[in-house]
Amino acid sequence: MAWSPDGKRIASASGVEGEGDYTVQVWDASTGKTLLTYTGHTEAVHAVAWSPDGSRIASASQDRTVQVWSVG
Amino acid sequence: MAWSPDGKRIASASGVEGEGDYTVQVWDASTGKTLLTYTGHTEAVHAVAWSPDGSRIASASQDRTVQVWSVG
Amino acid sequence: MAWSPDGKRIASASGVEGEGDYTVQVWDASTGKTLLTYTGHTEAVHAVAWSPDGSRIASASQDRTVQVWSVG
Amino acid sequence: MAWSPDGKRIASASGVEGEGDYTVQVWDASTGKTLLTYTGHTEAVHAVAWSPDGSRIASASQDRTVQVWSVG
Repeated sequence: MAWSPDGKRIASASGVEGEGDYTVQVWDASTGKTLLTYTGHTEAVHAVAWSPDGSRIASASQDRTVQVWSVG
Repeated sequence: MAWSPDGKRIASASGVEGEGDYTVQVWDASTGKTLLTYTGHTEAVHAVAWSPDGSRIASASQDRTVQVWSVG
Repeated sequence: MAWSPDGKRIASASGVEGEGDYTVQVWDASTGKTLLTYTGHTEAVHAVAWSPDGSRIASASQDRTVQVWSVG
Repeated sequence: MAWSPDGKRIASASGVEGEGDYTVQVWDASTGKTLLTYTGHTEAVHAVAWSPDGSRIASASQDRTVQVWSVG
């Protein structure tokens, strides 16, 4: 889980190993509403991190890939 | 565990999976005294993070929720 | 996994305990291409961190060593 | 593992659950020499973090305590 640099959004990984549904979600920190849901990893995501300028999110997974997502 | 941006407080998660008592605590870093105890998660809390301005704490739990707490 | 302070590169650890191939890789965040691969740890790497000025990476491993790498 | 804010030192936890020897060590990032070894936790240390001004280290342990150490 990680706050965006501006403190307005939170990125978190969800999905439990062996159950599928491996996503990264971006939430509005004020309202608790989900703003974006990223899919693409085939195994559990164990870390998410915002780029310093808040424009992208990197996610690292047990599937041995690191993916970079643009946050609109 | 995470320092507040001003270096005065520390947030940490406690509680052991299967034993309940899942809380997030905020400590005074100088005195070691507990300032605040947040409850609400129903399973182990695996990450805590301060918002960049130090006004809120986000906690991510095995209960698959992310909660945002105001720090008075 | 960690972004470089300038947001241009990402460092991540790979290798699965018991399978060998314990490396730290540095990726170009824009292209997804691997820029550097560091070897040297003899067991799984569980954390990587950029120095504040982005010139070095520290990696901590189950082999009980912390290694510091220069990033050219 | 964590870099000091000035990029000169690295703090890391060592010790394996069930084997004792739970310490936090501070290393000189240039020479790799151990500068300080802190003891005090009775179970594995799972996180270390520098205070924003680099004067203290907090360590969180399976022994359910968070300890704050002054770095001289």
